[in-house]
Amino acid sequence: MIKAGVIGSTGYAGSELVKLLHLHPHVASVTASSKSYAGQNYADVYPNFLGEFENTCADVDIEHLADECDVLFLSLPHGLASSMVTSSILERCVIIDLGADFRLKDADVYQKWYNTTHHSPALLEKSVYGLSEVNRQQIAESRLIANPGCYTTCSILSLYPLLKAGLIDKDSIIIDAKSGVSGAGRKAQLSLMFAEVNESVKAYGVTTHRHTPEIEQELSLAFSHGVSENEITLSFTPHLIPMSRGILTTSYASLLQGVKEEDVKKAYTDSYGEEKFIRLKPEGSFPETRFVKGSNYFDLSYIVDKRVNRLIVIGAIDNIMKGAAGQAVQNMNIVFGLPEESGLELLSSIPM
Amino acid sequence: MIKAGVIGSTGYAGSELVKLLHLHPHVASVTASSKSYAGQNYADVYPNFLGEFENTCADVDIEHLADECDVLFLSLPHGLASSMVTSSILERCVIIDLGADFRLKDADVYQKWYNTTHHSPALLEKSVYGLSEVNRQQIAESRLIANPGCYTTCSILSLYPLLKAGLIDKDSIIIDAKSGVSGAGRKAQLSLMFAEVNESVKAYGVTTHRHTPEIEQELSLAFSHGVSENEITLSFTPHLIPMSRGILTTSYASLLQGVKEEDVKKAYTDSYGEEKFIRLKPEGSFPETRFVKGSNYFDLSYIVDKRVNRLIVIGAIDNIMKGAAGQAVQNMNIVFGLPEESGLELLSSIPM
Amino acid sequence: MIKAGVIGSTGYAGSELVKLLHLHPHVASVTASSKSYAGQNYADVYPNFLGEFENTCADVDIEHLADECDVLFLSLPHGLASSMVTSSILERCVIIDLGADFRLKDADVYQKWYNTTHHSPALLEKSVYGLSEVNRQQIAESRLIANPGCYTTCSILSLYPLLKAGLIDKDSIIIDAKSGVSGAGRKAQLSLMFAEVNESVKAYGVTTHRHTPEIEQELSLAFSHGVSENEITLSFTPHLIPMSRGILTTSYASLLQGVKEEDVKKAYTDSYGEEKFIRLKPEGSFPETRFVKGSNYFDLSYIVDKRVNRLIVIGAIDNIMKGAAGQAVQNMNIVFGLPEESGLELLSSIPM
Amino acid sequence: MIKAGVIGSTGYAGSELVKLLHLHPHVASVTASSKSYAGQNYADVYPNFLGEFENTCADVDIEHLADECDVLFLSLPHGLASSMVTSSILERCVIIDLGADFRLKDADVYQKWYNTTHHSPALLEKSVYGLSEVNRQQIAESRLIANPGCYTTCSILSLYPLLKAGLIDKDSIIIDAKSGVSGAGRKAQLSLMFAEVNESVKAYGVTTHRHTPEIEQELSLAFSHGVSENEITLSFTPHLIPMSRGILTTSYASLLQGVKEEDVKKAYTDSYGEEKFIRLKPEGSFPETRFVKGSNYFDLSYIVDKRVNRLIVIGAIDNIMKGAAGQAVQNMNIVFGLPEESGLELLSSIPM
Repeated sequence: MIKAGVIGSTGYAGSELVKLLHLHPHVASVTASSKSYAGQNYADVYPNFLGEFENTCADVDIEHLADECDVLFLSLPHGLASSMVTSSILERCVIIDLGADFRLKDADVYQKWYNTTHHSPALLEKSVYGLSEVNRQQIAESRLIANPGCYTTCSILSLYPLLKAGLIDKDSIIIDAKSGVSGAGRKAQLSLMFAEVNESVKAYGVTTHRHTPEIEQELSLAFSHGVSENEITLSFTPHLIPMSRGILTTSYASLLQGVKEEDVKKAYTDSYGEEKFIRLKPEGSFPETRFVKGSNYFDLSYIVDKRVNRLIVIGAIDNIMKGAAGQAVQNMNIVFGLPEESGLELLSSIPM
Repeated sequence: MIKAGVIGSTGYAGSELVKLLHLHPHVASVTASSKSYAGQNYADVYPNFLGEFENTCADVDIEHLADECDVLFLSLPHGLASSMVTSSILERCVIIDLGADFRLKDADVYQKWYNTTHHSPALLEKSVYGLSEVNRQQIAESRLIANPGCYTTCSILSLYPLLKAGLIDKDSIIIDAKSGVSGAGRKAQLSLMFAEVNESVKAYGVTTHRHTPEIEQELSLAFSHGVSENEITLSFTPHLIPMSRGILTTSYASLLQGVKEEDVKKAYTDSYGEEKFIRLKPEGSFPETRFVKGSNYFDLSYIVDKRVNRLIVIGAIDNIMKGAAGQAVQNMNIVFGLPEESGLELLSSIPM
Repeated sequence: MIKAGVIGSTGYAGSELVKLLHLHPHVASVTASSKSYAGQNYADVYPNFLGEFENTCADVDIEHLADECDVLFLSLPHGLASSMVTSSILERCVIIDLGADFRLKDADVYQKWYNTTHHSPALLEKSVYGLSEVNRQQIAESRLIANPGCYTTCSILSLYPLLKAGLIDKDSIIIDAKSGVSGAGRKAQLSLMFAEVNESVKAYGVTTHRHTPEIEQELSLAFSHGVSENEITLSFTPHLIPMSRGILTTSYASLLQGVKEEDVKKAYTDSYGEEKFIRLKPEGSFPETRFVKGSNYFDLSYIVDKRVNRLIVIGAIDNIMKGAAGQAVQNMNIVFGLPEESGLELLSSIPM
Repeated sequence: MIKAGVIGSTGYAGSELVKLLHLHPHVASVTASSKSYAGQNYADVYPNFLGEFENTCADVDIEHLADECDVLFLSLPHGLASSMVTSSILERCVIIDLGADFRLKDADVYQKWYNTTHHSPALLEKSVYGLSEVNRQQIAESRLIANPGCYTTCSILSLYPLLKAGLIDKDSIIIDAKSGVSGAGRKAQLSLMFAEVNESVKAYGVTTHRHTPEIEQELSLAFSHGVSENEITLSFTPHLIPMSRGILTTSYASLLQGVKEEDVKKAYTDSYGEEKFIRLKPEGSFPETRFVKGSNYFDLSYIVDKRVNRLIVIGAIDNIMKGAAGQAVQNMNIVFGLPEESGLELLSSIPM
């Protein structure tokens, strides 16, 4: 049985982690740690936990927590994890970081997109990009897992098999993403108020969103079969839509000459045919975020548009599940040698 | 291990039942039966089940299903269950009916409010009103359980301890209820369209809603300690609000002379203190439907308004869980001697 | 042509005022004043005004604004208006205050419910409660108009004719109100975030909401024909529902002995039969907030429930229109002798 | 003063037309005609009109209506308008058709995408594509105006100046569109129910949406300066998002070699600099549908992404206003020589 801790347990991803770990059949205990709510009853912060999990929020003391726990999940604003994690910490416990600090292999790229200094570039070599289906082997052997971002999980999983198989023009990639509001986190901000979000849609972070280099890095690695992380530059445009949870990405790419629909089908089946949490939709059926909400699934459809020789790939996840806490638990399961679906046997309800 | 069947499995409550039963640790198999979708893959109707539950929808043949299953859940429009269920069926399997046909003990009252003839009044004696916390003993011994309506579950549980303890003026009761749209079921109807429901609130069924006699019956029985089901007449006003799931009821009643706040507290604690699925909120905290969504909880707060000597009781449930499928599974657990929370260890997520 | 100013022009009511006044056929100019956004282009704060109204936000300098404007609208947190308005200001311009400071005739009641000192109790005598249909004559002659609150407008208009005509038991009144989120104003607050409000409903301010004494005062005056403002104590329970705009109130009261349905009908027709902005719904039809959204209408239905001898009255307004900015403009029209519907010939769209 | 009629007045666009025309300063009368609701009070169908417009719905008798009215708006499912309109009708009144029947210049293209026969191909020559800002002159002289679709208005206006000026690679165009639910019309359909739409996003009509040929036709004409309507083939992907009104399109295109940001700016300014209803957003500010909702505005931003040499153009409209009824009234104003903004001086409210 695993002793787990969550640092930053009162954000949306942190709270989902507490829930998943609390109900996980192989987790013995969960320590919920929070800077803002230290000393308070967790169920006062999240009343859905009333009667279920009424632990007091612990202080954010990673040294202490690393001694107490087998695995620590960090769900923090960027810049904090890289100043907390050390080699000594990693000797004592497994770190699964849901933030951005250990995702980009090149500290310079991190510093450029995040406009800040990286506090522990030496650890980047030790970290594994925690996209479970893509890097399962390395994850199993790692002590520092950089859990992918929500947009990036959906985007990379949509295109990874195509680039690995060399089917699309790598310079033609456009990803148009739509996200619910929870992706922005739990914070009091005017632009996230109900009356400002409801009944409206907007693009934001156009050409500048920080998930872009992460997508480019992983797709470059797929394209170059691990050789280079700088092969691909693409367009990524996120949109905010009036719902709480869920991400849908619509990806466009030109097919290379001679590529046929069967090649595309084969690429997806080869990569994902055996995957529990990736569902290729039946023909004529397309992903909708409600069908994955509350679950760890990534749903996927593709369509070849012969009129324009372009491939359109549509992917959907629950941003807080497969896009954050769910995949983090999946990674924990991989590291600890548990069945990958432990604690993740969850299914969306309709309506949700 | 239980063999379960659901007749009317493609409505919202039916679908939730299929999900709960499919994931239930003591259920061996689930037969999903549907008139409209017979012969189709269940996951084509509800794509959230893709890869999880791809059974073909069975015909609605209760004779056959009664032979195959240990328990049958009926989730049908009123009038159908009472024409399907017979003494012979009840000998072969347990029936948990989520519809209205067996809830009202007096067939005349049923006929008046539902404006139709009751097809099997003789069975009414055999049926037990399936409000789990109130009628646990009778449920355990019954073969025909009339699962309560959504509004009624929330309303009765709010007021039952007060009437049982004789604390409120029985002629002063007003219940003002707010419900999400799923309570109306899964049907193509103009008034339920997104563009007709969104950004609006309305009352409906004012003074005529069919859950009224059900609430009156059960509260009368509480008030009279089982002697009479005609003691109480009350106001019940449902409202439709722009959300998918959840019911909140705000109940008002005048306190009888001399009744103190401690008496109210004692009444609730006596009735519900040991109940897993009923949560008395801490003082100063009030129910919100999001905190029970997706779970089988009923959350409850009360406040004594001394200015007007009136008690206000606020209750919240997920209408499809504690208000339908969740309570139905709870009742199955009771009948089959299982731990009451089997298959119901579910917790709301925030945001949901 | 009127020169108008709005102090607190960047809140929701303030912004609606700027819009209504900008498009008003008898308003020559609008000065938008704001503490937080002084010096900024109004269309940068509210991009819906782009190309329409790009004035720079003026400083909040009431002395200066009183010289420049014929009428000043104040849309400010409570406590500010009463410290700004003076007799000298009132000599120079008409004040229509959308806040709470001049609504309650008894400064002690104000101080008790608002838990603060009133800064200019002497002005309370000069102020008129700006419920247009009820106090039209006094409004026409006043220089200081206390525009009613949103909940209060809907609540008082629902019950005023009944109390004036002496038809209901004054001790039996319960008002259960449902409001969209914009009623809480435009402010970054965790409980107002989309992901915290969406898909949920809750009661708040139970027994303590500050609109209660305002409703009691005006209904007492109706009941006593202007003699007393302390005759009525009632229950008022507001609820927050997941929509941006709109208030629906469901009011309950016991009919006095011998009162018939015709008496109720006559009371409403006598009071409202000629009113442009009050619509008695046809029998069998009930108010929905979407039918008044964006307009200055108050829609009203009543139903006599003979089973319990109780009257149920349902009212609906747009909280920012008839509940704030719309009624404020209506009051301006009254004061300046304009047709009451000037600038208010607005109709809801479906869907809105 | 104009006498106007609306055939198909009880759909969403029809109802908005009735409202706009009823409040239009140059319209003397509005005849609301409806097949489904003939003989009923319009305000019973749309209770927002209560007390404002209580005309009885007229039969759908275009011969009679053409005699009575100066202009007839048709808001009908495709296939009906082309079987109703004749040369004789056009001699008697101006037709503004909000449906698809007269938009595509090539009847074969219509027949292919709509999978039906065109009933009056001979009239196609007489019809003008009613994109007001693009075809103002021809509209002014026409008797048969094919009002553009909602997606198409937003898409064409986004890209028209770029193609006219020859700045983008015509084979690189991708339009990713997001729409509220009202675009699907007012009909009881399972997939449009609140509980099916809320909290979800999906793509639909991928590669097959019928607005595609309309966009291609008009952009081809822009590109070829009126010579050809078959120059451009593009990707158009619509998405349904959980809101009632509004369309946002995100368009992608590769810049031709040597094209600079100033060229793009000049193209937009040249085309739209003087347009009342087209607003180029200030730099750094992007369209949101809430800022145009309820108005006839088209809001527009573009951004050059130098990393990938691609242009991203974001446009927003209210699908029922600029995307249907608003533009139809704008076209009426053009035909009748009225100021183009007559009856359209409408501004979004925040929150709406």
